[in-house]
Amino acid sequence: MSAIRSSLIDPDGGALVDLVAPPGSRAALRAEAEALPRVRLAAVDVEWAHVLAEGWASPLRGFMREHEYLQCLHFNSLRLPSGGLANMSLPIVLAVDDAAKDRVGAAPDVALAGPDGELLAVLRSVEIYPHNKEERIARTWGTTAPGLPYVDEAITPAGNWLIGGDLEVLQPIKYNDGLDHYRLSPQQLRDEFDKRGADAVFAFQLRNPVHNGHALLMNDTRRRLLEMGFKNPILLLHPLGGFTKADDVPLPVRMEQHSKVLEDGVLDPETTIVSIFPSPMHYAGPTEVQWHAKARINAGANFYIVGRDPAGMGHPTEKRDLYNPDHGKKVLSMAPGLEKLNILPFKVAAYDTVAKKMAFFEPSRSQDFLFISGTKMRTFAKTGENPPDGFMCPGGWKVLVDYYNSLQTEGATTPATATV
Amino acid sequence: MSAIRSSLIDPDGGALVDLVAPPGSRAALRAEAEALPRVRLAAVDVEWAHVLAEGWASPLRGFMREHEYLQCLHFNSLRLPSGGLANMSLPIVLAVDDAAKDRVGAAPDVALAGPDGELLAVLRSVEIYPHNKEERIARTWGTTAPGLPYVDEAITPAGNWLIGGDLEVLQPIKYNDGLDHYRLSPQQLRDEFDKRGADAVFAFQLRNPVHNGHALLMNDTRRRLLEMGFKNPILLLHPLGGFTKADDVPLPVRMEQHSKVLEDGVLDPETTIVSIFPSPMHYAGPTEVQWHAKARINAGANFYIVGRDPAGMGHPTEKRDLYNPDHGKKVLSMAPGLEKLNILPFKVAAYDTVAKKMAFFEPSRSQDFLFISGTKMRTFAKTGENPPDGFMCPGGWKVLVDYYNSLQTEGATTPATATV
Repeated sequence: MSAIRSSLIDPDGGALVDLVAPPGSRAALRAEAEALPRVRLAAVDVEWAHVLAEGWASPLRGFMREHEYLQCLHFNSLRLPSGGLANMSLPIVLAVDDAAKDRVGAAPDVALAGPDGELLAVLRSVEIYPHNKEERIARTWGTTAPGLPYVDEAITPAGNWLIGGDLEVLQPIKYNDGLDHYRLSPQQLRDEFDKRGADAVFAFQLRNPVHNGHALLMNDTRRRLLEMGFKNPILLLHPLGGFTKADDVPLPVRMEQHSKVLEDGVLDPETTIVSIFPSPMHYAGPTEVQWHAKARINAGANFYIVGRDPAGMGHPTEKRDLYNPDHGKKVLSMAPGLEKLNILPFKVAAYDTVAKKMAFFEPSRSQDFLFISGTKMRTFAKTGENPPDGFMCPGGWKVLVDYYNSLQTEGATTPATATV
Repeated sequence: MSAIRSSLIDPDGGALVDLVAPPGSRAALRAEAEALPRVRLAAVDVEWAHVLAEGWASPLRGFMREHEYLQCLHFNSLRLPSGGLANMSLPIVLAVDDAAKDRVGAAPDVALAGPDGELLAVLRSVEIYPHNKEERIARTWGTTAPGLPYVDEAITPAGNWLIGGDLEVLQPIKYNDGLDHYRLSPQQLRDEFDKRGADAVFAFQLRNPVHNGHALLMNDTRRRLLEMGFKNPILLLHPLGGFTKADDVPLPVRMEQHSKVLEDGVLDPETTIVSIFPSPMHYAGPTEVQWHAKARINAGANFYIVGRDPAGMGHPTEKRDLYNPDHGKKVLSMAPGLEKLNILPFKVAAYDTVAKKMAFFEPSRSQDFLFISGTKMRTFAKTGENPPDGFMCPGGWKVLVDYYNSLQTEGATTPATATV
């Protein structure tokens, strides 16, 4: 592909990986796939195939073989042919069970089918190696405590083997959920940044509704970039769209909420691109935040805003944060392969009860500030209580209230409509 | 220090770290230390202080501060001022409990005392940060299963804080166990290699008695190096001398056994240096083998022999190896910061029942070979049964038999002499 691309930052490995078969060769590839041993993917595997196919994980060209998996687990990076390192902190691997391993046998290539059996891709020159789940979990999360959402969803039920190889996707992966138009590939994002004449792109990763504290931070970042001399900084508002844990706000609700934030003028549509980052969520703190940053390099962002406790959550079995909340930004600033990305640490915003708006926290008058956590925000929305004026734009807040109302209605009617 | 050093391979960071106070300043340093808040070290901490003081961990200049600890845990490497990476896979940290943390308070410098209270060192510009034991264990060992020897010895009983800083040791650390003359520092080893005119140094790390299979491998490595054109390859036979698990053969017995191997002519004293590597053992497989290799770079070795399942052991709670036995050599070949070291993979030797000697295993006549594991060897020695002729030189074997006999005598008499 010789597509035009934003020249702000080079993709990892120098070229954006594109693993979608060109239209002219798709029929032949499908015919070939029909005859190959078949491996069935879980929903989360399809999300990873999507991530790989569009080059978010460049220079990776498919599910990891063992030499990539080991580098990822031990060094959070991959050696490039040039001798340098690309960051790669999460194992992007495909697990298969004994039956699938037997079915593949010594075949060099296999077909990958989706959860409903539809053919999705071919994986070439495959390598099958043991899936040591305990070691993978310990080295990725820094704990093996039961109750890690991604582990419960995608690792515990998965097979005891990993199959790596070069991926060729039969056609662009779509979800047909009414949100596909938000799913811009790294190439499409680079094209869009070029079209808008961006001279700086700052990415904001999130998996929660946008409140006015987030907006303050994003607008302030733009102001600082203008002060630094950039003429046209563009914000990539980049909600994560893959697997999330059960109590996170679902993607369609979040996308509607983000739309309202732009409609209500809290963020400027002229200088903001809202798009979906198709990756699943690991909740692996300092290890995962590197992935979040690295993928945005490939999408053309040269500035990355890192929050407090990024990709963190409560410890699943102890009453504490799973990660030290400062480790994410520290690890990000040290990570091999991320040297070319400008890391912008999050300034903490809270509700200023005097100014009656979200404002950057000032320790000197800490008694004036109210911290509204995600849990507290959800509790407000669930109980129908209004947050303080100025916490979130009214249109965005209504989306959340309606969502939690719909849940309660569902919850109330489910037992009555259940059949035994 | 401008000491002469072997030019075969540069120490990590370019210069060998030496943290032992020069003789002229020792009295003043001791006087200063007397007045500082004091931290008491466990025996294993003293071993690490020794390792740090002599520069085995160059460029590290003391127990890790948090920015070094995080790089070690996540990337198994440390960023150098030049922008490059030095390998550093094991956290070299000093744990303190709440009481010690309170005692240190805001003092910039602290004194370190040994287990018996004797002053050993000063730690300067200290930083105290949380010791998240679960995360440290998971990321270092890839498991949190109970029963890891180093964890039980040195982490579980240790405090919930880590204290990092720049180390200054009051005088060279000695053990007065009759083996100190074997404890050559990296500088002393480099000097010795120079003195012998070595043009290649190949290191062999071990924590077990040397049998004729090991000797075959070492002699064969020398032969290969000569074939490659080196004129004077020197073997560094480098048993680990710090903490080992209870069922490993103790250091004094191993040193006596190694002496017999040289006396009996199995290894050539002219081209072999036997010295003690003062590090404690983690049994952390692929993570630890990097440390074993990296420390030998600092000691001037430019070739490193890596075994099957290096630094491995059985899983503490499951009936399997804790690590995939091939991962050690694979990870070593990929590890950031070890590019300049030549890795020589171990060739498997076994007892050839036809030739009646240890020989390299030939898969084509596998039925002729007998594998004698460490466990089997210990069982032979314990039960007084002789291993097959040619397994180990008679002098070396006698050392082991005598050791296990002494254990049994002890075991038999202990109950009778015990007082209640």
